[in-house]
Parts: sequence; C-alpha cells; structure tokens
Amino acid sequence: MHFASDNAGPVHPKVIEALAAANDGHAMGYGADALTRAVEERLRETFEAPEAAVFLVTTGTAANALALATLAEPFETVFCTPVAHIHEDECNAPEFFTGGAKLTLAGEADKMTPETLRAAIQSQGNRGVHGPARGPVSLTNVTERGTVYTTAEVAALADMARGYGLPVHLDGARFANALAATGASPAEMSWKAGIDALSFGGTKNGLMAVEAVLLFDPARAHEFELRRKRGAHLVSKHRYLAAQMLAYLDDGLWLDLARAANAANARLVEAIAGIAGVELLYPPQANMTFARWPRHGHRRLHEAGAEYHLSGNTLEDDDPLEGDDPHALLGARLVTDWSTTDDDIDRFAAIMRE
Amino acid sequence: MHFASDNAGPVHPKVIEALAAANDGHAMGYGADALTRAVEERLRETFEAPEAAVFLVTTGTAANALALATLAEPFETVFCTPVAHIHEDECNAPEFFTGGAKLTLAGEADKMTPETLRAAIQSQGNRGVHGPARGPVSLTNVTERGTVYTTAEVAALADMARGYGLPVHLDGARFANALAATGASPAEMSWKAGIDALSFGGTKNGLMAVEAVLLFDPARAHEFELRRKRGAHLVSKHRYLAAQMLAYLDDGLWLDLARAANAANARLVEAIAGIAGVELLYPPQANMTFARWPRHGHRRLHEAGAEYHLSGNTLEDDDPLEGDDPHALLGARLVTDWSTTDDDIDRFAAIMRE
Amino acid sequence: MHFASDNAGPVHPKVIEALAAANDGHAMGYGADALTRAVEERLRETFEAPEAAVFLVTTGTAANALALATLAEPFETVFCTPVAHIHEDECNAPEFFTGGAKLTLAGEADKMTPETLRAAIQSQGNRGVHGPARGPVSLTNVTERGTVYTTAEVAALADMARGYGLPVHLDGARFANALAATGASPAEMSWKAGIDALSFGGTKNGLMAVEAVLLFDPARAHEFELRRKRGAHLVSKHRYLAAQMLAYLDDGLWLDLARAANAANARLVEAIAGIAGVELLYPPQANMTFARWPRHGHRRLHEAGAEYHLSGNTLEDDDPLEGDDPHALLGARLVTDWSTTDDDIDRFAAIMRE
Amino acid sequence: MHFASDNAGPVHPKVIEALAAANDGHAMGYGADALTRAVEERLRETFEAPEAAVFLVTTGTAANALALATLAEPFETVFCTPVAHIHEDECNAPEFFTGGAKLTLAGEADKMTPETLRAAIQSQGNRGVHGPARGPVSLTNVTERGTVYTTAEVAALADMARGYGLPVHLDGARFANALAATGASPAEMSWKAGIDALSFGGTKNGLMAVEAVLLFDPARAHEFELRRKRGAHLVSKHRYLAAQMLAYLDDGLWLDLARAANAANARLVEAIAGIAGVELLYPPQANMTFARWPRHGHRRLHEAGAEYHLSGNTLEDDDPLEGDDPHALLGARLVTDWSTTDDDIDRFAAIMRE
Repeated sequence: MHFASDNAGPVHPKVIEALAAANDGHAMGYGADALTRAVEERLRETFEAPEAAVFLVTTGTAANALALATLAEPFETVFCTPVAHIHEDECNAPEFFTGGAKLTLAGEADKMTPETLRAAIQSQGNRGVHGPARGPVSLTNVTERGTVYTTAEVAALADMARGYGLPVHLDGARFANALAATGASPAEMSWKAGIDALSFGGTKNGLMAVEAVLLFDPARAHEFELRRKRGAHLVSKHRYLAAQMLAYLDDGLWLDLARAANAANARLVEAIAGIAGVELLYPPQANMTFARWPRHGHRRLHEAGAEYHLSGNTLEDDDPLEGDDPHALLGARLVTDWSTTDDDIDRFAAIMRE
Repeated sequence: MHFASDNAGPVHPKVIEALAAANDGHAMGYGADALTRAVEERLRETFEAPEAAVFLVTTGTAANALALATLAEPFETVFCTPVAHIHEDECNAPEFFTGGAKLTLAGEADKMTPETLRAAIQSQGNRGVHGPARGPVSLTNVTERGTVYTTAEVAALADMARGYGLPVHLDGARFANALAATGASPAEMSWKAGIDALSFGGTKNGLMAVEAVLLFDPARAHEFELRRKRGAHLVSKHRYLAAQMLAYLDDGLWLDLARAANAANARLVEAIAGIAGVELLYPPQANMTFARWPRHGHRRLHEAGAEYHLSGNTLEDDDPLEGDDPHALLGARLVTDWSTTDDDIDRFAAIMRE
Repeated sequence: MHFASDNAGPVHPKVIEALAAANDGHAMGYGADALTRAVEERLRETFEAPEAAVFLVTTGTAANALALATLAEPFETVFCTPVAHIHEDECNAPEFFTGGAKLTLAGEADKMTPETLRAAIQSQGNRGVHGPARGPVSLTNVTERGTVYTTAEVAALADMARGYGLPVHLDGARFANALAATGASPAEMSWKAGIDALSFGGTKNGLMAVEAVLLFDPARAHEFELRRKRGAHLVSKHRYLAAQMLAYLDDGLWLDLARAANAANARLVEAIAGIAGVELLYPPQANMTFARWPRHGHRRLHEAGAEYHLSGNTLEDDDPLEGDDPHALLGARLVTDWSTTDDDIDRFAAIMRE
Repeated sequence: MHFASDNAGPVHPKVIEALAAANDGHAMGYGADALTRAVEERLRETFEAPEAAVFLVTTGTAANALALATLAEPFETVFCTPVAHIHEDECNAPEFFTGGAKLTLAGEADKMTPETLRAAIQSQGNRGVHGPARGPVSLTNVTERGTVYTTAEVAALADMARGYGLPVHLDGARFANALAATGASPAEMSWKAGIDALSFGGTKNGLMAVEAVLLFDPARAHEFELRRKRGAHLVSKHRYLAAQMLAYLDDGLWLDLARAANAANARLVEAIAGIAGVELLYPPQANMTFARWPRHGHRRLHEAGAEYHLSGNTLEDDDPLEGDDPHALLGARLVTDWSTTDDDIDRFAAIMRE
C-alpha cells in the first residue's frame, strides 16, 4: 500500500527499454547528440512552441531554481504560495541559485487568486531601494495540495503579473496530471496562458530522473545554459536523459501515465470519502489526496504496512501515531502514481473502514 | 517640523569636534591605529565584556548582515518579525551576506513572544533536508514600531532560542534608546540576557556613520573580519570611525542623546494623544510614535512643511494625501532625535489640533 | 574511431541490467531505500573507511563543487593546477557553490609538486584580511593531461597542505583509472594518503550518471546533505543511482573497466608513438593521450570520421583544420574507455601513418 | 617619516570644514538631500557627462565590487592584472558581489597591453559552456605599482575589450594622481577613452571615506542602486558623503592634492634614486615608488621610525628585517600623499644614504 509519493514509484518499462536502446556505442556528451536534438524538437512540437528553448535536468528543484535564477535578479523577490515547493521543500535552492532573492508569500494555502497575488505584489516594491524589487511570480500546477488551476485561473494570474511587468514561472512537477485533470493542451496550460518558463516534470510520472525546462521566449537561453553548467546540472551522458524524455512523449505515454495516476486517486477518494470519520482537506483533483481521520485508523494502516506521510504542524519530536487520544484527527497526504494498484487502494480503504 | 527619521538628524557637535581632533597627521589604516584600539577597549568596558570582539562599520544594514552571516549557514533560516528591518528594509542584504539563507517570520507585528517564536521555530527544521535548517533568532530593540523589549522579555526569547541550540542576534540600531527607556545597562540588555551578537547603533543617535558589532563570544571574530573585508566594509581611514564612537561613549553622551530623543517623543505623545481623531497604534516607548488621524490633518501638516512618513499598506501609485474622503484615517510614523526641538513638537501638535 | 571523451562511451550492460532489476515496485525517495543503504556500506568497505560519509550525485562538477563548498569558506582560496577541471571546465561552479571563494593556481601544468604547492600557499594568506585566507587544496588523479600521481606523490602534497592546516580534496573523476595505473588500493590512494574528501567518478567509466563523494571525516556530513539538497542535487528516485554504483562495484567491475580503458590507451600509444611526426606531449599513464602531429594527418583522420578534441590555444574563430601549412603541428587529446575497440585503434593509427 | 599608504594620511582641513558646515539641522536620509543632488550634478559636470549615473560609497572595494557586479554576470570572468587590487586586496569581494564570477589575469605585472589583454580574452570563452563566459575588463590607473596609463593606452585597451563586446571598468582609487601625472581631463581619462564604469577615488587623496562610482551609460543605474543597498553600502546620513566630495571638487582641490602627492613622490625619487644600492623597480609616475635596497638600510630606517611596507614574496612568518645577510636586497613600497612633508622625505633619504 504505497501512497508516500509519486517519486517512490517505479520507472515505466518503456523508459528502461529506451535507456537500453540508447546504449549503443559512442555519442558526444553534454547534449551534442542526436537524441538530445530529437527531444528538443519533440518538446517544441508538443508545446506548439517552435521558438522555445528546451533544457533537461535531473531534479525538479534544479528545474525550478535555474528557471527562477534566469527570471529573477538577486535584489528582487519572487511571489509564491506559502506551501510552494520552492518555499518549503528546496532547502533555500531558489535563494541560492538567484544569488539571494527573497520569496514573498501570496495567498493562504495551495492557490493564489488574482486578488491575493495583487496584495502580495503591492506589499513589495514600494519602499524605494529599501525593500527588494518585484520579481517573477511562480505558480504550481498541480498544486502541492492536489488541487488544479484551470487554464483560465492560470491566465488570470499571469495577466495580473504581466500588468506589473513581472514574468511568470510554472512549477509543473505534475504538469501531466494537471493536463489530465483539465483536458487542456500543453500550450494552453503554459505559454497560451501567459507562462514564460515551465518546469515540466517527468520523474514523478514514470521517468527515472528527468525534468525539462522550457523558456518560451528564448532570449535568455544562453544564460540558462551557463547557469545550468555553473549549477553542475549539465549531465555529460546526456543522451540518456533525452532517451527517457523521448520515450515519455512517444505515443502520449506521459498523458496515459498521468491519467492512470489520477484515476487511481479518484478510485481512492471514492473508496475512502464516505467512511465515517474521514474528512477531505482539499478537493482532490489530480493524483494527491489530503485528508484526516482518527489516530486509531492511522495506527491500523501503519501496522498493515501502508506507506504515506502524515501532514500538518505536529511537533517534530513526537511520533503522531503515539498519543493518548485514539480519536484525535491526524492529517495525511496520499499520493498515487501510474503504478498504483487497485488492490492497494482497496486494501487501504478496507483497513480504514474497520 | 522634522519627524521623518532619526537618521535625518544632525551629528552631535562633539562628534564633529572629535573628527577634527583625530585629523592629526598620519595613522595606519584599516584599524591599525591607536583610536581603534581605544574604542575596542572602551566598548568592552561599556558592555562589561572583556572578551568580546568589536568591529565598526558604517551602516546598520552592514552590522546586521555581517553579524547574521557569521551566525548563520546558507542552508538555514533566520527567525525575525514581519516588520524587522532585516526583512523589510535591507533589500535582501541578509540573504546576500549569508549566501542565501531564508528569513522565517515569527509573531504578527513588532514583537515576538516566546510562544510565537517557538511556533516559528517548530514550523521549520522538521522536513529533513527538504526545508532549511534552523538558524539564528534576530530580535530588534527598540522595535521598528517604537516599542521596547524589557530585559526579561529579551531573556525569555533568548532562552527559547537557546533551548533549540540557536544563537541570538539583536539589531540595536536604537539600542541606546532601549536602554534609556528601560534603565537597563548595556550588559543587561545584551549578553546577560542571552544575546550572542549585537548591532550597536550610533548613526541614528548623533553619529555620522558608525555602528558597532559586538560578538560576545569571540570564537568567530576572525571570520567576521574576513567577511567585513569581503563585504567591502573595512574602512581604510578607520580612525575616523573610532573617533566618532569614542566621542559617543565619552561621559555617557550616547545615553544623554537617547534620553533627549525619548523625552522629545514623550512630549510629542503628550501633545497629540488627546487630540480628537488621533489614535496611537503602538505604545510609544522610545523615540518613535505610530499613530493615525484624518487625512485633512495630514494635509495641513504637509502644507506647513512637516516631514514624516505615512505608513501602512497604501497603494504605491496613489498619493495618500489625495483622495475624496478628508476624514479617512491615515497612519504615520513620527520619529524624534536628540536635536528635536520643543518648538517643532508644539507647532506640529498645534496644526494637528486645528 | 571514438576518442573524444570517456563520457561519450556507452553504459556497461550490467549497469543497464541493474537499473532494470532495481525497477521493482515502490521504494522511498531521496535515499531512504535499501539500495542506497547498501551502496553506502559497500563504498565504506571498498575504501576500508567504516566512518566515511558517502553521497551520490549525478555529475562530477556537482561532486567537486559540493565537496569544496563543504571544505572551504567563501573568504578563502582553493589551490589547484591551471588545468584543473574545477578551474577550466566547471563554468564557475566552485565559485558558486563556495559562495565566492577564489581559486589560486599551483604549478604550471597537470601536476603540482610539494614545492609548487608550497609557493602557491605562501603567495596567499599573508596579506591580513586583504587577500583571501588559505583554503583547501584540490588535486586531480588521473590528471587532466592523462598523467597519474603515485600514492607517494599524493601523500607528499597532502602532507604539505596539512602542514598549513589545509584540508585536501581529490577530484577522482578517473579515480579507477589511477588505481588501475598504479596498483594502489582505494584507501591507499585516498585517506591513507591524506585525502579528506574524494570525488569518486563513475560516469566516465561505464555508469550512466553517478559520482560519489566520500568525506572520510564525517563531521560535516549533515552540512553536505543540506548543501546537496540546496544545490538541487538530491535525486528523488535515488535507488537508481545506488543500483548503478552497486553494479559498478560488484566483482570489481569498476576496476576491470578502468583496466580495459587504460589498456586501450596503451595500445593506442604503442600504435602511434613511433609514427614519424607524432610527438607525445605528456607521458600517457592512464586512458588519455595528448599528442601533436601535422595538420594533414588531422585532416585525413577527420575525413575518415575520427572523433577527438584538438587542444591548445588556438584562436576560437578559426577552424584549426583549415590553414595554409599542412605540416603545422596541431595538438590533440585522445581518450579511450572500456568500450574502445582494437579495430578503432588500429584504423586510427593506420590513417595517421599514411 | 610616513610612507606606508596614502590612506594613512589625514583628511584635508577643508573637508572637515565642509562636514561641519553640512551639520546644520535635518536633511532627508539615503541621498534625498540637497547636497547629494549637488554633488551628482557636480560630478557630471566635472566629467562632462550629463547622462552619467553617480553614486557615493565609503570604500574603494565597494566601488569596485559594485561596479563589477553591475557589469558582470556570475557565469563570466573579469579580466585584470595579477597585481590588481580587485584580485589581491579585496578578500574575494568581486567574487562575492558578482555572485561568483572568476578573475582571469592578463599581463605579467602592473599593466596590460592590448596583446596581453587579447591573449587573456582568447584564453577564455572558447570552451562552450564549460568555462566562464567573457566578462568586463578592469583596469587600474594609477596602477598598483605606481605607474600610469596614458589616455592612449587606456583607449587601446578599451578598444580591444570593445572588439569582443566587453565593458570596461577603471579602478581609479588614485584617478586624481593619474590626471595630475598625465594632464588628461577627467573625461579624457574615462569615457572618452572607452571606460564604462569608473571607481573615482577620494579617500586616498584627502577625503575621510568617500569614493564615487560613475556609470557613463545610466541604463543600469537602478540596478546599481539596488545592489548598493543590498550590499549595505547606502549610507543613511548621505549628506556627509556629499559634503566631502563637494569640498574635494571645489576649486580643483582634488587635483591640487594629487599634484602635491605626486610632487612629493618626485622629490623622494630624486632624493633616493642616486643612492648607491637603491634600485627602482617600476618607473614612479605618480605618488608611489617601488624600490629595493640592502637590508641594513631598511634596518636603519625602521629604527628611525620610518613607516612603509616591504614588498615581494617574503615568507610570511619571517621578519624580513631579520636575516643573516645585511646586504640582501629587500623591496619596499613608498607612498606619498598631499600631506607628505619635505622634511620627512629629506630625513628618509638621509638615513638611507648613510
């Protein structure tokens, strides 16, 4: 019963096959190979963006931090939500790669609205040189709470940013899941909605370790390349990144995998939503569900070997599974991926239901 | 009617005299002069801290940023209030000098309490390597809203930090005013209360451009020296910084000036507090008063040449003095310094009262 | 005829097999998996270093830059040769990761001697706070010119560094080739010779994208972990890095591959060394040969499809293959790897010999 | 007998007077005062550069580091001589402020030539993304060895840089001395010769602690302002910097002081050049002389209280005045300033001559 993270899931077999197929003799390093040329072209086609600059890296944090470093100056502040991966889960990587830019939080939780974004922007940049200048807006879709921005919502936020002359980054670690949830095309959910730079995830959706960055305006492409190398993120045997991403894009595999992950999540939600004592914390729109239920339920699941993360502001030194009150509600994050089995879901729900 | 800032005030004449007196022939640069030796000794005596390492710099931001860079690692987060100078008014200098540390906000406004500090500390450092590690706590006394921590309050916060193994920095840009307000000794308000590193202000209280940093544990003194030079903050003709600070400390001038500034503020508060429509926003305990009153009052003061900053989240592009409603309340910050005249205060209150 | 780089070579089939074998169901991310535990233990055994801290990353630049960032302060200077990868080929990554440390060059070319290292160390750190403080010494073995330090040479350099209290890093992108060349054990070529931090290469020797960092003193292990995450170099599906490295270490595969690469180079040297007009530039002791020969020879090789890099200070905008004088000598770097074929070598030499 | 440094000299009395005169009541901080407006205008006039952006800071290192940070990207390399202040005497400040740019050394000693600059430029930027990109060229005039570039020499170097599209910075810590030596106008020695950004020194020539930065193309002026604040180099009581610089520029005081310093140096050179055993190391063209003479002469001068720095690669832990051979030659740097007395010079020469 594996619901800990979509990056705990396996690599899709076709990706392993692609690695083996790419492993044929010599190929020039650092991206000067035919597969890299092919994947760049394929990504441009996929996004209907013939001018876009395309780069592969091995981690989502690298994709985000390099994109932001290219968009932001060190004396600026980046706007994101309080639960943004760039704020909570990257150990100051954005601050590092930007040379010390600040992050300013917009909104209360998983999503910004144009109003909360506007308030955040207005709170900055009005102190002359005393505070940081306003920098890029960074959105996340699928959000870190499993909710999904529609293309209209993204466009409204990007319009707000644009009104202040600010560029927009989208952390798309689960971009495929957002498309699967909304039916939007890659272009519609990115540059057509006003996104300037996209972190296009692969690892959480069946790749081994590949994320792409797309700069829809290629003006700063060379800068990105130098920042990638300087960040030690230019992989020498680059063909193996390209091979993974090509297999991912072939025949829509990436969307099939995302649909499978979302469907598994929907099945999970259906299985547990009606159970007495279970409360959904956010509308689960993609492949993550945040919910809470009594401690005794968590204990049973834990004893049965279920893997998932408890969430919320628990005191770090305490094991939340311990504690006197078996009925106390504990929050949890449940993540499905393309390989999640119906059996796992059904067992999980059955144990919960007891 | 000058209430814009204590750094808009003049230099005390004795400081100018001290500069002239120091201007006698040659003296080795970069601190290798007799006045610098003397001021180091004098500061150690003043703080009853014979082991302390002492450094002079020309700006409060330098004092804060260098102190924090010495206390914090780039993969850590610093804890401060939402209105801390290091957060709002230093254009990412702390992020720059620390190499990209983050700031985490504790409390809601001018002061932390042990509880709000504890909540902030608990919110960080519990995500393994995904979030930043916990770093120093940075307090400010006098706070940016004109309130003052007692020594007991400082000690309680430092104890909380110490319980987590975190060092404590005090931004004392208005340290003299805090002592004048509380009657505490320099040692009581700093290392005896648990402060590890102090930014000891001078510029806002009658100096031209000198702040001291005291590291009460000198273990990282050499690192500080190298960071100061690397930050371009080692002044070559160092004797002129030392001369200023010596004049400041001579015969308690620094405390006299702070008492004068605080007394002027008390007179101002007394003069305006009873005026209909005037509302104090924070208890004015040192040399700053935050208050609000109707727009028409601001307009009259403005026309009469009064200088002060409006405060609050006004939209940047609008002039808050404009607007349809003359009775709308606008916030303001009023700052007194050692040179504030009774006449300025009385005229200000008289115009307000009209 | 592939002699461009050992990172242009393929992945060894056993590594691909290991990836496929590791691709079985779920495993916790970020290194919290069984294969990562196993590879850490295996590396400690391989190096006879039961206390060592072990980390995997995907690029050699990351290994070097993170190791140096852990050993160096931003106000220090790192000592390396003028041809060091960290100086010439990492686009300021060491400067970036250390927060702005400088590199000071020791020696004239591929190797330092204790004397040239001593001169470099003496040239720094004697200007008080005006110049940088002395920081780590970074060696490279196999050197960037294909020569090899003996364990005695490494020990003599490390002793010199230690005499100044400086830690020692070894860039071992081709560490296996150095062992194959000298017969030294992993421990003898690293901590027993005085190395504190090792970048242990895998990618150039048959892996896809895995390098290890070993900190023989684990005191700063946690710092390294945070710096790795902050540098965006903590791979989420970490088991696939571990699986590669385990396959590499199994049954001495890594040393077999290095021996094969070195043997191919020896065959190449034997084949070309006697050809009229061919001049070896450095003693080829591992898997790289630097040589020069007349332009017409390069032209023939180029037309026949031979891949290798020309070396030396040629003007960037000129194609060195062009030019009036067909007898002008042009330098070249020839690199062999485990997959280099005798046929490639023989054809290359035959064309050269014409 | 004070020849240690021009920053060991006193402040000119007119500057002290100007500080006292400026000390009149309140003035808005951070440069929003009348004197700052006036000095900006005055500097533009002085340089015949009505569009130039002008900034004041308190140290030469700040002027240099901020100028370079504005001109360079972190993935670039700056070109300077091996004895440049930015390389040898700023404890990695350029690396820090640029976010990790590298310095590449051009030429062998005090000066570049177009040929050595070209060679340095050619040595970089030809490795794709592997090495740093080419960044600004930084010249120093007066050089760190007391020699002076003519305007034609500066122009030739700037032309070379421009041919590669690189901007040019001039470290003019002793800019006034260079003008006094050459008779060039401020404009001729700066923007008319191709300089983009100038560090215009004051402190070494009679000010207390003021340097100006001039950006002749104001396009990046706002960036500079934010970088200055972020670097903690925006002085709050800014009028006192402006007052110093205005007094310096009034009636050509700055050039008078530089001429006096240069004349003192000429007198010193005349007095010592003919002494047996004294060897000049560089042609002394401004206010610094590098020479060597036997150890016994240094000992006599030292005992008589002469202050100056020994130069050269002496071992740090040894006192060069000690040692067996009294006839061994030791190098020295002798610096004059506007306040150097004929008496000091004559006594110095007399002791030397003994």
